[in-house]
Amino acid sequence: MRATPPYDLDAFLARHVPIAAAMGVRLRSYDDDGLALAAPLAPNVNDKGIAFGGSIASLLSLAGWALTDFTLREAGVAADVVVASVQLTFLRPVRGEIVASCRRPVGAEVARFLDDWGRRGRARWTLRGSVGAGEAEAALFRADYVAVPRPPSA
Amino acid sequence: MRATPPYDLDAFLARHVPIAAAMGVRLRSYDDDGLALAAPLAPNVNDKGIAFGGSIASLLSLAGWALTDFTLREAGVAADVVVASVQLTFLRPVRGEIVASCRRPVGAEVARFLDDWGRRGRARWTLRGSVGAGEAEAALFRADYVAVPRPPSA
Repeated sequence: MRATPPYDLDAFLARHVPIAAAMGVRLRSYDDDGLALAAPLAPNVNDKGIAFGGSIASLLSLAGWALTDFTLREAGVAADVVVASVQLTFLRPVRGEIVASCRRPVGAEVARFLDDWGRRGRARWTLRGSVGAGEAEAALFRADYVAVPRPPSA
Repeated sequence: MRATPPYDLDAFLARHVPIAAAMGVRLRSYDDDGLALAAPLAPNVNDKGIAFGGSIASLLSLAGWALTDFTLREAGVAADVVVASVQLTFLRPVRGEIVASCRRPVGAEVARFLDDWGRRGRARWTLRGSVGAGEAEAALFRADYVAVPRPPSA
């Protein structure tokens, strides 16, 4: 079980992604199952007193981005990670803290992703996740992320 | 050409949706073609200096929500509007102001939506939109919105 994220994600988001800071995004867990982010309801509420759908979309997108970025960092790869597509289904309202989990793909898929990067300098994979869990799932998520070369530093 | 939104959306979002306020969301246009929202880059930037994908998702989701809500209000319908599903494709980075447009469905589809509400007290439709336009489209959007009865006031 992984216990140590490769860098301080909370500090990174607070410094570089102002909307994530405004949302109050925090890393909740990181282990063999995947990665989970949490955000309190208050800054993410809508007019109906439930979580704003855009905040749910953002938190899930960030969870997938972070899982991809962590996977690459742990393999010693320096790449940019961009989201290519997102599919979301909203099942029920979220009335408290938002917890967005993204599942780690099986080992063979991780190996395929890293091998594609090594051979082509580009790699794409599909991640799945959710807000809530089990029968209480509030949103289902599927997204494609692409590892691309970093542009030369300015 | 419609020129007058049925209510002050900017004030509504500033008051009731804190993340929309943090994003700096403003109504850009509202006419027969549809509805467009805008947000400046600065509060919506990511670590790469481009628009955060979550902000793009939020702005498009809000545009579709607002077009649905405006349509119902103009028809004299008091309903809550919830997003049921979202599909997003990201085509290229957004390096400045984010402008998210949602297209108004054809008249027959508007009539079908309102007729469903009248007969069943519930109605669903699919909206399409984009960030950017024409060859410069940066993101494509499709989402389903549902009009549901308002809960009794507390």
